[in-house]
Amino acid sequence: MSKLYIVGIGPGSKDYLTLASKKVVESSDVVIGSRRALDLFKIPDHGKIELNAQNMKEDMKLAVSEVKNGKIVALLSTGDPGFSGILKPILKLKEDINIEVIPGVSSVQLCAAKLKIPWDEADLVTMHGKGILEDILDTINNGKPTIMLPNFKPAELAAYLIENGIDPDRKAAICEKLSYGDEKIIETSLKNISEMEFSYMCVMVVY
Amino acid sequence: MSKLYIVGIGPGSKDYLTLASKKVVESSDVVIGSRRALDLFKIPDHGKIELNAQNMKEDMKLAVSEVKNGKIVALLSTGDPGFSGILKPILKLKEDINIEVIPGVSSVQLCAAKLKIPWDEADLVTMHGKGILEDILDTINNGKPTIMLPNFKPAELAAYLIENGIDPDRKAAICEKLSYGDEKIIETSLKNISEMEFSYMCVMVVY
Repeated sequence: MSKLYIVGIGPGSKDYLTLASKKVVESSDVVIGSRRALDLFKIPDHGKIELNAQNMKEDMKLAVSEVKNGKIVALLSTGDPGFSGILKPILKLKEDINIEVIPGVSSVQLCAAKLKIPWDEADLVTMHGKGILEDILDTINNGKPTIMLPNFKPAELAAYLIENGIDPDRKAAICEKLSYGDEKIIETSLKNISEMEFSYMCVMVVY
Repeated sequence: MSKLYIVGIGPGSKDYLTLASKKVVESSDVVIGSRRALDLFKIPDHGKIELNAQNMKEDMKLAVSEVKNGKIVALLSTGDPGFSGILKPILKLKEDINIEVIPGVSSVQLCAAKLKIPWDEADLVTMHGKGILEDILDTINNGKPTIMLPNFKPAELAAYLIENGIDPDRKAAICEKLSYGDEKIIETSLKNISEMEFSYMCVMVVY
């Protein structure tokens, strides 16, 4: 039966793939994902479609139309498709197709693991696709660590928080390029983060 | 160098193991876990220590003392050690040892995946080791789905919620024995759950 699998691939390296994701991806007719994601699996070339990250809407339409053509399609999503992933936009399409979600390890979880933060007592917040959330200041002041997927540069977010009354000496951390060879983990103050340069692949924590 | 790896093994079946967990477990000197968890990996018998679930404190002490004896120890934790897992009690011991956490897929994530709930817009709550949380009623009434690891039978929790003013017709779900062959997923009303029998391995959702 035709089906759309939405597959979590973890933070990026092969180390966090699950056997479930490999089984599903390697037995699908069509696999859609970024070059980086496709390279994690053994897929015959004719079954691969490289994602155009600039045009997610087209990619999703393509996935849905392949399913409607009777195919089993795997759509690869970084982290867990249910946390700041592709599940929500797919559901918004309200297409009448069979969907199954394969969960994965989110980068917020790997961040919590690296910093040894029990995340059942932390707030996990994604800003992806949004502006700075209005209630982020309340969240940061509620006594629990806040683990964020920022939508912009960590320095800008740190500067915004300081301008809005958060103590510049507040303990904060950045996990950059998690799971990759050049992964960096920095525990410092909010003020220092506001003066540092990072890549866009960051998770930020304010303690 | 001696080290304590706290390793997330996912909800229970081999399908949700990550390669990172396999690498760490299969190269440790000592692996401590439940029979069920140990059976997921290839470990020589002399390196296995079966957990006594009735006596977590002793198990943790044993893990720490093996590390202090110079060993590389892997302590297996269902789900993600950082969500309702063994990370928090280990940190509370405040032992001066080298610790690394390997994240895993939590059963709350697999529940969200099965029910296609984007969990960045849900509340994830663990009641394990606690009574009914005082603020659970507020959480359940905040407009977002609440995904819970209950500390007692789902029927009792559902009855408690109804007694405390939550609409008995409120949509609710139970995911039982997630990832196992006899996994069950039931979407129904809170009232129906209050009248049903489930095993203790459940995740409960109130929409």
